[in-house]
Amino acid sequence: MHLTGNLLIGQQSIYGGNGTIKAIDASNGKAIEPAFGGATLDNLDVACALAWAAFDEFRETPLEARAKFLEAIAQNIVDLGDVLIERCMTESGLPRARLEGERGRTVGQLRMFAEVVRNGDFIGARIDPAQPERRPMPRVDLRLRHIGVGPVAVFGASNFPLAFSVAGGDTASALAAGCPVIVKAHSAHPGTAELVGRAVQKAVKDCGLPEGTFSLLFDSGREIGQGLIKDSRIKAAGFTGSRGGGTALMKIAAARTEPIPVYAEMSSINPVLLFPHALKSRGQAIAKAFVQSLVLGAGQFCTNPGLVLALDGPDLDLFIEAASAALKETSAQTMLTPGIQNAYEDAVEKAAGHPQVTTAARGRDREGANQAQSALFVTTADAFRENHELQEEIFGASSLVVRCRDLDEMRELIEALEGQLTSSLHLDVADYDDVRSFMPALERRTGRLLVNGFGTGVEVGHAMVHGGPFPSTADGRSTSVGSLAINRFLRPVSYQDLPEALLPEALKTGNPLGLNRRIDGKLQLAD
Amino acid sequence: MHLTGNLLIGQQSIYGGNGTIKAIDASNGKAIEPAFGGATLDNLDVACALAWAAFDEFRETPLEARAKFLEAIAQNIVDLGDVLIERCMTESGLPRARLEGERGRTVGQLRMFAEVVRNGDFIGARIDPAQPERRPMPRVDLRLRHIGVGPVAVFGASNFPLAFSVAGGDTASALAAGCPVIVKAHSAHPGTAELVGRAVQKAVKDCGLPEGTFSLLFDSGREIGQGLIKDSRIKAAGFTGSRGGGTALMKIAAARTEPIPVYAEMSSINPVLLFPHALKSRGQAIAKAFVQSLVLGAGQFCTNPGLVLALDGPDLDLFIEAASAALKETSAQTMLTPGIQNAYEDAVEKAAGHPQVTTAARGRDREGANQAQSALFVTTADAFRENHELQEEIFGASSLVVRCRDLDEMRELIEALEGQLTSSLHLDVADYDDVRSFMPALERRTGRLLVNGFGTGVEVGHAMVHGGPFPSTADGRSTSVGSLAINRFLRPVSYQDLPEALLPEALKTGNPLGLNRRIDGKLQLAD
Repeated sequence: MHLTGNLLIGQQSIYGGNGTIKAIDASNGKAIEPAFGGATLDNLDVACALAWAAFDEFRETPLEARAKFLEAIAQNIVDLGDVLIERCMTESGLPRARLEGERGRTVGQLRMFAEVVRNGDFIGARIDPAQPERRPMPRVDLRLRHIGVGPVAVFGASNFPLAFSVAGGDTASALAAGCPVIVKAHSAHPGTAELVGRAVQKAVKDCGLPEGTFSLLFDSGREIGQGLIKDSRIKAAGFTGSRGGGTALMKIAAARTEPIPVYAEMSSINPVLLFPHALKSRGQAIAKAFVQSLVLGAGQFCTNPGLVLALDGPDLDLFIEAASAALKETSAQTMLTPGIQNAYEDAVEKAAGHPQVTTAARGRDREGANQAQSALFVTTADAFRENHELQEEIFGASSLVVRCRDLDEMRELIEALEGQLTSSLHLDVADYDDVRSFMPALERRTGRLLVNGFGTGVEVGHAMVHGGPFPSTADGRSTSVGSLAINRFLRPVSYQDLPEALLPEALKTGNPLGLNRRIDGKLQLAD
Repeated sequence: MHLTGNLLIGQQSIYGGNGTIKAIDASNGKAIEPAFGGATLDNLDVACALAWAAFDEFRETPLEARAKFLEAIAQNIVDLGDVLIERCMTESGLPRARLEGERGRTVGQLRMFAEVVRNGDFIGARIDPAQPERRPMPRVDLRLRHIGVGPVAVFGASNFPLAFSVAGGDTASALAAGCPVIVKAHSAHPGTAELVGRAVQKAVKDCGLPEGTFSLLFDSGREIGQGLIKDSRIKAAGFTGSRGGGTALMKIAAARTEPIPVYAEMSSINPVLLFPHALKSRGQAIAKAFVQSLVLGAGQFCTNPGLVLALDGPDLDLFIEAASAALKETSAQTMLTPGIQNAYEDAVEKAAGHPQVTTAARGRDREGANQAQSALFVTTADAFRENHELQEEIFGASSLVVRCRDLDEMRELIEALEGQLTSSLHLDVADYDDVRSFMPALERRTGRLLVNGFGTGVEVGHAMVHGGPFPSTADGRSTSVGSLAINRFLRPVSYQDLPEALLPEALKTGNPLGLNRRIDGKLQLAD
């Protein structure tokens, strides 16, 4: 497919007149064709007007039609074939296998949301039937359903050019909720964005949906991204990126006349806790698995294990030794963008130069431009406690081991951590009692607790939480991965004493949609 | 029961040293004893420390124990007997029958949340079982539950001294969610607050819960309310009050290092739409019911019908005539506070003096201090459209009828309205088609749509939404009345590959709590 560099505004394809963006070949730093036209504020206004106009119709599409639309997007992405994978490899520097896997995840995610839509539980239908005989006052008939919040702005993420970008998790869950979506493409992969955007645009057309259901904008600066958050027709936003970027959007959203939620997934160092018995019995095996997780995808995962906490002593020495040996064998990997690579090198250099931090190991040297060498550092609990900057995420394959005097000190450090996406616990049966004493503190600041594994590898399912207290996300009451992500884009509406003829289908007495509903507070299955 | 004027900090009862507050007898404006001591920042710190210390234990209380605690609070409130009603009548100026009803609502609400806790659906338990055979990668075991967000600050409301104050809906739903609560008492009813606070404090003790589960603070200024929102140990807040007060708290919350949600329920004018056939056939009956709703409780309800939209013509003239006749017979009523009464009089005077507004009727003259005369105004669609101040809530028994040229103009006005708690539709069968064309616009900006009734009278049930887009509330994704209100204070946590011994009870394979759970995305009832 020929790349045009065009904005996709509803069913239009228009070259933006506000500066240009070119992708950079991640492997050699060279700009690649074509130039993508940045959107003007007028383009933004048209996209918002279309989305607003589409909302009422799109949110009332029959569930089956909406499910088919999500499946059509998935199929259209598959149909892009190798053109998509190759463009994406060039733009992101990520290897083929990873991107083929990510494509599978992306289409799987769309198909999962199709099933979520068909199932209809997200509507959360509730009926409290009238009680005309109640004294002193008769009880009215009350029925409740959830509807989409309105048009949603989605900001593509650099590190998941497919699964968290144009047709990624935020877009899939917003569309499933019945919300039109306007995507601000990430400038690191505009070609990938255009290809996927066309797949969505075509699905909108083929499914006969209002054209404003989807638009894709390129932004040559920050005007369009900020303008999206400011526009009164946008009612929520999804973002995955840096803490600086996310908090900037949160501030703009909070300052609106009508504040809106920004679901920003920002930064996390994902503590790994090595409990004494596991460390003693399997320290070296854990070390190897840890390094594998650390260097996966050049460490460019939100769930990358950036912090290891364990008791100081010979078992931890052996762990560090084994991890260092494994890390030294890891090849330097191409990072997503030169900017990310520079930031990584700066942060690693800063850590290496920290007077209370020692460098345990570095990975193999770079062999090409824009590559990054993995790194493993060690420090003490005292140093970690006293130097807040050691808590800051280093985006890339770098981790810090903290030597703790005892479990109390380890627990203290946990209590000093900010909110996290994941916490990994390595433990044996003999560690259970100690682990129990850590659970409350971990639950309070973590979205996902996992045992004898690492946070990388985020299963797209119904029981997944990819979220967590601030600053891991803007809103710890939500997840951006998994079926629960749809809840971010829904709001409840209650209907009192409506005649059957005016009730939404989901709430009609005969249950024509075959939904599971809560009657007088009690869940009743449709079957 | 003897009033002490003391703060209730955990199980302590301490006289605050930061200025004093006295209640005002609403009927005569005179200060009444005792003086309540305002909390110092040190008192606040102790309350927050206790709440924080209580959180882990309280959120893991067995469901039955937590339910019994809510029921104990309800019973202790009932046991206060007439002392509570009499003090509350003096402080609020509200009549006995209303306050006895409100007490019933308050204890009913606590008992409903006890049932919600016992039922356990709020935990939202989900299990995606492991699939060790899956290719290319085995699937991990993932389980999800919801836990409380942490200690919650609750701001008592002036207009519901029982149902939305110390042990009102915000407190009941936060405690049900497993969150300790610190209440900032409303200065208009400190005696009522102390009485109810002691009822909660005693329930905490009798149920053997950690003392930090509940504290009650008086605030002689704004320091304590703002301090609560700023304290890092507070993780959410519930507020009912003015738009100015609510947005001020929202701003403080958004500016924290870790922003937190403020569930503020603020202002709403609750449009009443009179459709042509209903207006023609039943205009005068609707007018009488409208005036009854308007003057209920001196119009001091968030759901008070402050706006009537209808087609201009003789049917509307008859409606206005009938409503005016009914309104003229309404007695002036004592308002909650002199401040509220002053604000009401100012706003009514301003409306009456508006060049494009005519006064259709005023209620009977005042007979005592702090009373307010009801008011009915009329204007045109053009004037309403061009003068945004006519959309501002007048807190009290005042309403504005807007004469519209046709249904298109009426729909246009709806589209120009801010978010609302309720919209009331008066209609006959012959109006159905017209009504359908209004539904999308109404749903987009309203929490509860009701037919042939008025928004006053908010049923505490499972299908109630007492919420709505900004500025009716801070967060249109929530309700502050009804069982769904518990969701405001919950967040999801996911557990991956945890051994049975470490899983929370709610997620153990054998389902020891007998919960309805979602297995692989499919709801399964416990029975």
